[in-house]
Amino acid sequence: MLPSPIEKFIEIFSKLPGIGPRQATRLAFYFINAGKDKIDETAKAIHNLKFLKLCSRCFIPHLNEGELCDICKDEKRDKKTIAIIEKETDQISLEKTKKFKGIYLVLGELAKTGALENIQKLRLSHLKSFIEKELNGKADEIILALNQTTYGDLNAIVLAQELKPFAKKITRLGQGIPRGGEIEFSDEDTLGSALDHRL
Amino acid sequence: MLPSPIEKFIEIFSKLPGIGPRQATRLAFYFINAGKDKIDETAKAIHNLKFLKLCSRCFIPHLNEGELCDICKDEKRDKKTIAIIEKETDQISLEKTKKFKGIYLVLGELAKTGALENIQKLRLSHLKSFIEKELNGKADEIILALNQTTYGDLNAIVLAQELKPFAKKITRLGQGIPRGGEIEFSDEDTLGSALDHRL
Repeated sequence: MLPSPIEKFIEIFSKLPGIGPRQATRLAFYFINAGKDKIDETAKAIHNLKFLKLCSRCFIPHLNEGELCDICKDEKRDKKTIAIIEKETDQISLEKTKKFKGIYLVLGELAKTGALENIQKLRLSHLKSFIEKELNGKADEIILALNQTTYGDLNAIVLAQELKPFAKKITRLGQGIPRGGEIEFSDEDTLGSALDHRL
Repeated sequence: MLPSPIEKFIEIFSKLPGIGPRQATRLAFYFINAGKDKIDETAKAIHNLKFLKLCSRCFIPHLNEGELCDICKDEKRDKKTIAIIEKETDQISLEKTKKFKGIYLVLGELAKTGALENIQKLRLSHLKSFIEKELNGKADEIILALNQTTYGDLNAIVLAQELKPFAKKITRLGQGIPRGGEIEFSDEDTLGSALDHRL
């Protein structure tokens, strides 16, 4: 019933994360009415993502000539301290604190079951061989920088088991009352943790 | 902080309807991790929307050689009965009923203030000159096929005033209890209207 380019657009866009058929349909007609310049600009923005490479060590996208991203290339970063993160943007959040001087490993979003996807297993074994070859088999510390949720806890247990032989110490981020947070509204887990880890 | 193609992608995608900066960021990393084929496929799906033309009479997108869409080209359709719709997909819904044999005019989503955008004014004056030239100044009926909401009511009043001189009759869609609907859960507006327009 709809012209084929619209049908095809809806088919492809409704499979993207967070976009359903309704939103895809809306976008199709938005582009058609917005005109050729908008269409070109958007197609180009997608196309240009092809120029990015994933860092061969931490899997963060970069534009460098070599295989490594800026952080992995940086001689001043401590390669013996490795933060495992789910999302590329978690790196940005952690870098903003200016408190972390180690390197990263991006795993991608972890399943709520604690089961690892093939690509995640691949990245972990990649990390293990990096630790074996370049750190003589043991990292100083692996920080499991996962969310403080039940799923994060579950995945942290799985990952800690996997990585135990490869680090002197495996840690998670501290749990406590966030800046601006009030005791009245803190749940008992958070409050208990804040008591255990007093400043 | 992010590589420029990602920054640019986020800038462009977060301006699209229904997509904010968070969703745009998520999509950027989704594409980078999904790889070149997915990127090409998606860019092409957008690019191909350029081949569509808007019907010179009703503004529905089509792929025909000439200026008119399939419905406007169809000699069997009654050009003296015109349904004014907001969204292109409303046409699909109305066509599915197989009860409407007239033609359409797509206006685009109407503002909640009742004010018409420039493009909407343009399309209405386009309709008026069509009625003047091809229907001798009067359509048999203009159906304001707008949503049965307060905003739809407001816009219907505005449009009826605009189009009064150009149609023998201006109507809206019937209001009543939807198929499968129960009296208990019908609001008083709907129920009142269902009483007024008994079958």
